Amino acid sequence: MAGYAIGVDLGGTNLRVALVEENGRLLEKLTTGTQVSRGRETVIAEMCSDIRQLAEKFSSAGNLRGIGIGVPGIIEMKKGFIHESPNLPGWDNFPVRDEIEQRLGTRVILENDANAAAMGEKWLGAGRDRPDMCMLTLGTGVGGGVILNGRIWHGMTGMAGELGHVTVESNGVPCKCGNLGCLEKYASATAVVRMAKEAIDSGQAPELKKAMSDTPEFSSKNVYQMAIQGDEPAQAIYRKVGSALGIGLAGMINILNLPMFVIGGGMASAWDAFAPTMMEEVKKRSFVFRATTPPPTGKIEPGKTIVTRAMLGSDAGLFGAALLPMLPEEVAEAHQIRKQA
Amino acid sequence: MAGYAIGVDLGGTNLRVALVEENGRLLEKLTTGTQVSRGRETVIAEMCSDIRQLAEKFSSAGNLRGIGIGVPGIIEMKKGFIHESPNLPGWDNFPVRDEIEQRLGTRVILENDANAAAMGEKWLGAGRDRPDMCMLTLGTGVGGGVILNGRIWHGMTGMAGELGHVTVESNGVPCKCGNLGCLEKYASATAVVRMAKEAIDSGQAPELKKAMSDTPEFSSKNVYQMAIQGDEPAQAIYRKVGSALGIGLAGMINILNLPMFVIGGGMASAWDAFAPTMMEEVKKRSFVFRATTPPPTGKIEPGKTIVTRAMLGSDAGLFGAALLPMLPEEVAEAHQIRKQA
Repeated sequence: MAGYAIGVDLGGTNLRVALVEENGRLLEKLTTGTQVSRGRETVIAEMCSDIRQLAEKFSSAGNLRGIGIGVPGIIEMKKGFIHESPNLPGWDNFPVRDEIEQRLGTRVILENDANAAAMGEKWLGAGRDRPDMCMLTLGTGVGGGVILNGRIWHGMTGMAGELGHVTVESNGVPCKCGNLGCLEKYASATAVVRMAKEAIDSGQAPELKKAMSDTPEFSSKNVYQMAIQGDEPAQAIYRKVGSALGIGLAGMINILNLPMFVIGGGMASAWDAFAPTMMEEVKKRSFVFRATTPPPTGKIEPGKTIVTRAMLGSDAGLFGAALLPMLPEEVAEAHQIRKQA
Repeated sequence: MAGYAIGVDLGGTNLRVALVEENGRLLEKLTTGTQVSRGRETVIAEMCSDIRQLAEKFSSAGNLRGIGIGVPGIIEMKKGFIHESPNLPGWDNFPVRDEIEQRLGTRVILENDANAAAMGEKWLGAGRDRPDMCMLTLGTGVGGGVILNGRIWHGMTGMAGELGHVTVESNGVPCKCGNLGCLEKYASATAVVRMAKEAIDSGQAPELKKAMSDTPEFSSKNVYQMAIQGDEPAQAIYRKVGSALGIGLAGMINILNLPMFVIGGGMASAWDAFAPTMMEEVKKRSFVFRATTPPPTGKIEPGKTIVTRAMLGSDAGLFGAALLPMLPEEVAEAHQIRKQA
């Protein structure tokens, strides 16, 4: 009998729940505000209600293989806890996984949202047919996921893939993680807005200044619009984004020599504005990339390193989360680790 | 019947050949000058002669499982070629592996010397009992090896683990690899001598200046001696080494979340001079490290990230090279890849 799973993307702005078949077909997706401000209990109740609703509606679709939940924060895999998620205050040291398993009576896998997105792109997006890949998710922050031999590389404690906190400027902008010059401080949407403010404060960006005062919710998208319309200070900001991404990617290519690096998240839509500088830096800084540069056709060939845009947009994490309970090894890992704890 | 293998370390200064049993016991080691200047043919003939000599002497020790050769350069795994080895001019595009296999009639595995050293430390040194680890070899350059699930992570084309070419100063010293500010430009023996010359040229390092003019073969070891004797400019150089290592390690910890990072190679003997700064930087720059910091006792515990010195000295690569032909998966990989080529 065919199986399906339910993927959950517990984001800062939306709670999204989708039912996905083993073949990757999405049967239905529910999107609701997470109402994070109304507290943990409300969010969990909403999530469980959505999951039950979908599971009942599609009860004829096969066996429910489990629930995968992508969460913006660090997962303590052994315990099924969420740590250090500024978007989810009040969830620290709470046994989220066990709580939801009990309420629903089915197995639950928690995963970092960037890891889930990487798994989604690997399954159905840019990384299809690639056993190994790395994905950077450029959003409010910069998340990362490393897939090796078809599985998320969790590392020793589930904290691997923190690609947004690789140093790209050793004496650069301080990050809340304690480091200076993290990739996240130059390649996130937040960073673009910060750099726009810096440019405005320097007095060298009159158009940006005008746009910011005219736009109530001024964001990285406005800076992107101005960059593609030819505003030099806006273009310089996206060149900085590209340069930081290039430095980070070159290091990852030299360390891991993977066939594919995928750039996703909301900021990936500004690809045209940052990608040329990014690729220049990657070529200059990684001899491993140069030794494995794909031909200009962009055709995917064995032995070549592809740096490309994500394909699934904001659904990547939802697909990836749904896949996890359908992978025997992921289930085994989550449960083995829990038993050892 | 017990087995053994022969490991070869084809270095810039020495050719070393050792016979090692499956249990890790080294039965005999031959060390000769490689006479690289006398050309490829001389070196290969010498190597094969040494291997035959050991194999005949210990013919009663069991089955010869194969030959592993650690080489300073990039290995093209599919073809068994050595690429871009400045220490081995004239070896490019020559089928080293097949040539030696034919002469000796036994299987040969070529491996990058830093990968072989990592495998040696994993087998018998600092990384024992750790399935995953990363080793930096600080010598003339900086090499690296990443061990995941007990095996060398080769990446797509065998070029993974180029940890010496991770950027630690985005606008730093140019490297022959094309990048600026590679780890190797600050943490190799060559870098220490360069920084000593820079300090002397600045007029701020009178003792270093005196030592350099008094010492015919002035090396990083002299700078280390002066650092431990309290010379501030010499100490500053090793703080720079430590800082660069810390930046690089923090990134690797955030990317891979491995339980162990091992520092080896000749420069590791200057550990006292660079380790304090290195550990400060790692703590500051990696929140993954801080979340997994071992207790001050240095005791090895599950879930903790250890950064430590290598244990096997210059024999690490020899042991690692000998291990490779005794690992069925390594043999399978080398041969599968070759068949596909």
